[in-house]
Amino acid sequence: MSLPEVATTSARPHVAEAGAQLIGEIREQPLALARLLEHDAEFAAVAETARKRGATTVRMVGHGSSDNAASYGVYAFGLLPRWTALRDSITLTVHYASDLDMSASTVIALSQSGRTQDVIAYVERARQTGAFTIALTNDPESELADAAEAVLPLAAGHEQAIAATKTYLNQVASLALLAAHAAGTGPRMTGHLRTVTEQLAELIPRLESRIAEIALPFAYIGRMFVVGRGAEFSTAREIALKLLETCRIAAEPLTATALAHGPVAALDPLFPVWTIASADDTLQAALEAAARVQETGATLIASGTAAEKVGGADYVLPVPAPPSPLLSPLLSVVPGQLFAWAVARAKGLDPDRPARLSKVTLAR
Amino acid sequence: MSLPEVATTSARPHVAEAGAQLIGEIREQPLALARLLEHDAEFAAVAETARKRGATTVRMVGHGSSDNAASYGVYAFGLLPRWTALRDSITLTVHYASDLDMSASTVIALSQSGRTQDVIAYVERARQTGAFTIALTNDPESELADAAEAVLPLAAGHEQAIAATKTYLNQVASLALLAAHAAGTGPRMTGHLRTVTEQLAELIPRLESRIAEIALPFAYIGRMFVVGRGAEFSTAREIALKLLETCRIAAEPLTATALAHGPVAALDPLFPVWTIASADDTLQAALEAAARVQETGATLIASGTAAEKVGGADYVLPVPAPPSPLLSPLLSVVPGQLFAWAVARAKGLDPDRPARLSKVTLAR
Repeated sequence: MSLPEVATTSARPHVAEAGAQLIGEIREQPLALARLLEHDAEFAAVAETARKRGATTVRMVGHGSSDNAASYGVYAFGLLPRWTALRDSITLTVHYASDLDMSASTVIALSQSGRTQDVIAYVERARQTGAFTIALTNDPESELADAAEAVLPLAAGHEQAIAATKTYLNQVASLALLAAHAAGTGPRMTGHLRTVTEQLAELIPRLESRIAEIALPFAYIGRMFVVGRGAEFSTAREIALKLLETCRIAAEPLTATALAHGPVAALDPLFPVWTIASADDTLQAALEAAARVQETGATLIASGTAAEKVGGADYVLPVPAPPSPLLSPLLSVVPGQLFAWAVARAKGLDPDRPARLSKVTLAR
Repeated sequence: MSLPEVATTSARPHVAEAGAQLIGEIREQPLALARLLEHDAEFAAVAETARKRGATTVRMVGHGSSDNAASYGVYAFGLLPRWTALRDSITLTVHYASDLDMSASTVIALSQSGRTQDVIAYVERARQTGAFTIALTNDPESELADAAEAVLPLAAGHEQAIAATKTYLNQVASLALLAAHAAGTGPRMTGHLRTVTEQLAELIPRLESRIAEIALPFAYIGRMFVVGRGAEFSTAREIALKLLETCRIAAEPLTATALAHGPVAALDPLFPVWTIASADDTLQAALEAAARVQETGATLIASGTAAEKVGGADYVLPVPAPPSPLLSPLLSVVPGQLFAWAVARAKGLDPDRPARLSKVTLAR
């Protein structure tokens, strides 16, 4: 009975296990983050330029995971240098040609490939209207890098899986690092990020060993909400996107408050909710949202640094507390990445190759 | 055979038909908009104050439908006075106490009831840091109105159904009117909005007569995407929220580009997509997104002023073109409101009273 299997294996010696790329890149994240920190001086120099130019309105543009990371930037820049940061509308500048005055703006263009066409077009126009433009990309030789005034390397290394993991992590860390340098606290941030690399290296294998068992009951789930607030809203968006693209689950990210303003009406026992509860000033709101979910009978998954404080959660996936609460999203995204990888496999899908997607999206 | 029915009717003389409040308020929208226009001079005066103070960064805050309307404000202020407008993070100011300098900011606080606690807290803090604060509310005697420096009436009249309709319409129109006054083109905008009241009065009964038939096949649908770009992203968000709260459909709003960056992987023939195609500079992107949806076999509903240009849509719900493309969202939301009302009824749900929701949400 074992002969056919052996034959199959030897006939396809190069076919890796489904999801091998994705899990490989999830595991590589501590190393990717450490690589980013080697470029600390470049981040310091770019932050200094932004500060000298008084370019204190930060406009972030990107799609997919890059846009999710930008949600984090709102808090990194708002809390560290106390600058106003926004996920800017590409459409307003590129399609509607609004010609806003951007002379007091720093633009951060987020694109793993550096080939996202409307992000490049946005940077070209923003630069013409006086913005200080920064390309944050995995490819410093890309068209986006050429279009921007400054280039910061994402340094995540080549990413093969279509679903972004290590590039998302390094985007979030890059925004934290740049914001800290803008606030004059770069050296302290670098130390904190080094600690996070060690925490990730301990967390990832530990969670990986538990995740298949937790994922199995979710193989027949078609809908989920992922709830996070403040700095963790970026995590909620990123986990929901992983579930959509790798598991074909209609997963929608919501803030704790938005959940109460309508969506809670849709919940039922087959409509699970993933809640990210982290130990910062939003924790009470997150716990109240989780309690509202529980009343509906929906299955509740709790992750984050304060996951254990969520009473009655069906699954608890805590992560260690980083040296600063602002860095929690670097750790709290990991359970979602691993869960998406494991649920996709439980559903018989290939996590490395979601239907209809390609690594570089050229859609407008 | 008719006796029991007669008896039932006479035994419950005060029980209105399910959804009577919601459909009544949908029908009332032309009148609500006309009422708003009576307050034109107040909008002109407030815009003049913002302009004189140089408060040209517009920070909008609100939840649910109010936050959806704020998505529209990004385009109204970006395109008319060419001011930077953003949906600001309430968490950053209220929970994290970031103390950003808001001396060059206008705050627009959107709350139908004027009783949303964290919106009130945001306004109090923003006012302390130097922002020009405006309460846009249906209740000019509310706590929010007291907290803000200026008050603008939403003038939608008392809204009874939990799902907002006429208050959303008047919020969108208010933002257009305020932005036009800030740009010095208020009188032209007022004329355009008057034309829209007439277009709505013609559109609503015409669509209402068709909608039950279209809604019926969606009674067993659990997931949808609603796609809109630019000024119509607010419409996509609002239609998705109506479907979530009244029909218990996991409906997620997406921009045309975001659809291609991951979510398209989740589509299948039982996962329909609603596309808003309006005749402005984003039309080509909307048509390309619709074509990508069609390739997946998903059922496609097309609405908007250019709905008829979406090739191969299964359902086409066009709306008339307003005098300015920027006003399309006032018309294109109507098919979604009526569809949600009709699908809820087809599912046997009461559109007026979604589970677990109340008209004033006090969640943090």
